[in-house]
Amino acid sequence: MPGSPSVGKLVVLGVGLIGGSFALALRAAGRVGAVVGVGRSRANLDTARELAIIDRSVTLDGDWAAELVDADLVLLAAPVAQYPGLLVAMAGRLGAHTVVTDAGSTKQDVIAAARAALGGAVARFVPGHPIAGTEHSGAAAAFAGLFRQRNVVLTPLPETDPAATAWVAALWEACGARVRLLDAPAHDRVFAAVSHLPHLLAFGLVEAFAARPDADDIFDFAASGFRDFTRIAASSPEMWRDISLANRAALLAEVAAFRDQLDRLAGMIEGGDGAGLEAAFARARKARRDWEARCAAAPAIVPADGPREA
Amino acid sequence: MPGSPSVGKLVVLGVGLIGGSFALALRAAGRVGAVVGVGRSRANLDTARELAIIDRSVTLDGDWAAELVDADLVLLAAPVAQYPGLLVAMAGRLGAHTVVTDAGSTKQDVIAAARAALGGAVARFVPGHPIAGTEHSGAAAAFAGLFRQRNVVLTPLPETDPAATAWVAALWEACGARVRLLDAPAHDRVFAAVSHLPHLLAFGLVEAFAARPDADDIFDFAASGFRDFTRIAASSPEMWRDISLANRAALLAEVAAFRDQLDRLAGMIEGGDGAGLEAAFARARKARRDWEARCAAAPAIVPADGPREA
Repeated sequence: MPGSPSVGKLVVLGVGLIGGSFALALRAAGRVGAVVGVGRSRANLDTARELAIIDRSVTLDGDWAAELVDADLVLLAAPVAQYPGLLVAMAGRLGAHTVVTDAGSTKQDVIAAARAALGGAVARFVPGHPIAGTEHSGAAAAFAGLFRQRNVVLTPLPETDPAATAWVAALWEACGARVRLLDAPAHDRVFAAVSHLPHLLAFGLVEAFAARPDADDIFDFAASGFRDFTRIAASSPEMWRDISLANRAALLAEVAAFRDQLDRLAGMIEGGDGAGLEAAFARARKARRDWEARCAAAPAIVPADGPREA
Repeated sequence: MPGSPSVGKLVVLGVGLIGGSFALALRAAGRVGAVVGVGRSRANLDTARELAIIDRSVTLDGDWAAELVDADLVLLAAPVAQYPGLLVAMAGRLGAHTVVTDAGSTKQDVIAAARAALGGAVARFVPGHPIAGTEHSGAAAAFAGLFRQRNVVLTPLPETDPAATAWVAALWEACGARVRLLDAPAHDRVFAAVSHLPHLLAFGLVEAFAARPDADDIFDFAASGFRDFTRIAASSPEMWRDISLANRAALLAEVAAFRDQLDRLAGMIEGGDGAGLEAAFARARKARRDWEARCAAAPAIVPADGPREA
């Protein structure tokens, strides 16, 4: 509960890489009592139990909401598309002091679903987005150090109890993370640019290449630049479908802005504007190198953000 | 000379990473006698001499073309924008059996310049493109193993002497490379897709981000996906200016095709077509994973292709 440095009872909805690692990190920090795991898959929950990530579990077809009334904290770490249903099922079952947080990659849609479902209890909802992950998923992929030196963005609502936000922030910091506050529209705009658009571009490039008559030649001559550029095109299709639709307004704005930029560069190429191209490329190289230098100086700002699913 | 397994006298125009490494690789294989380096910078040539990459040198303001009459092989490894001037200066000075090859990233423009300058001697011009490089440049960056297990694409003309092509291919193989033949338009089309377009997209994305009012937030929250996606945006602005203009027709065709693909995906996002998005992303993931698996099975098809300059 807010004020206490630890969680008496934690309920994790979705005991995957993120939810499982959060439980393990709190355990490692001595900050949690009982952990109850809730999920679709009995097998995954049993794995989580065997790995001492959770103490006990309830599947989604059981009365999992009965676990909420005496929970100090609920972490929603299921696929975001499941949030509305889960939030509706939680409504009216939360304890008077239960704080709810989440780990979704988009925030305005999650907040809208929480507002619609939770009523007054939304004051104890602290929306969050841990910028961490690996290529693996499921409880078996979880580890206590996942959030160390990683950013966790919290996007509290105007009506969020500041004590709840501070408490959730302290718990993430106990997991080794660096907590950053953003308002939800800024979060969604920033991540549309820095994460969702690059994923769309990489997916789009590889999908188009795969469909070409000269696909064999193209992949045959692809080198390390292509490999790095398209690494994120091996991410989870389901997760990125959900993110693309959940953040559609911000993402479409980014696509439009990027099209304009591409048109501008294509115009320079068409017009033989070597000086313009070189200047644009040089600005990009400088920004990229400056960023890399900042990253080297402060490793926390380059968290892993590989594909992840809860 | 063609037929012989080695080069009596090699002239390298541009003793940088590529030109210097070619000389070192031939030396390591016992395939070269004398190496003469030609370049703009006296300091770089002196470095090349100290590192035993070359035996002697002539700067571009000296009578370097006098070295060509008894040369068995000339490697053009200067920046591609300098090729037309160099080729004109070479015309009429080549020996009757001197073979010329090059290391440029684009091929149709190089061939046009060679045809315009060399006259009948173009029959002994073997256009080439070693797909190898590191982030470093200059003679000091050269090393004998650079081309090991890397692709070298040769794009002989209809009038190229097949013996010259076979000889150059054998020399690259002696450097440890895998030689692939393509016609020049196919080369330029494939590399426009697999290399030039991704560079343009990465440069464009980073340049646009750097100019935004929220640039600080964007770079602050950029994670490892962004890092990989934009690594190539730290490449040489001069080199990529030259490539973008040299291969403009093929690159503009790729930009147009990619815009169509982006519009298609944006249309799915706008229309809430989750099934379509998921299917497109899944096709991309499968193609990307299949390619990665092929790469793991045959390392030669994932050469390094970082920024490079001669």
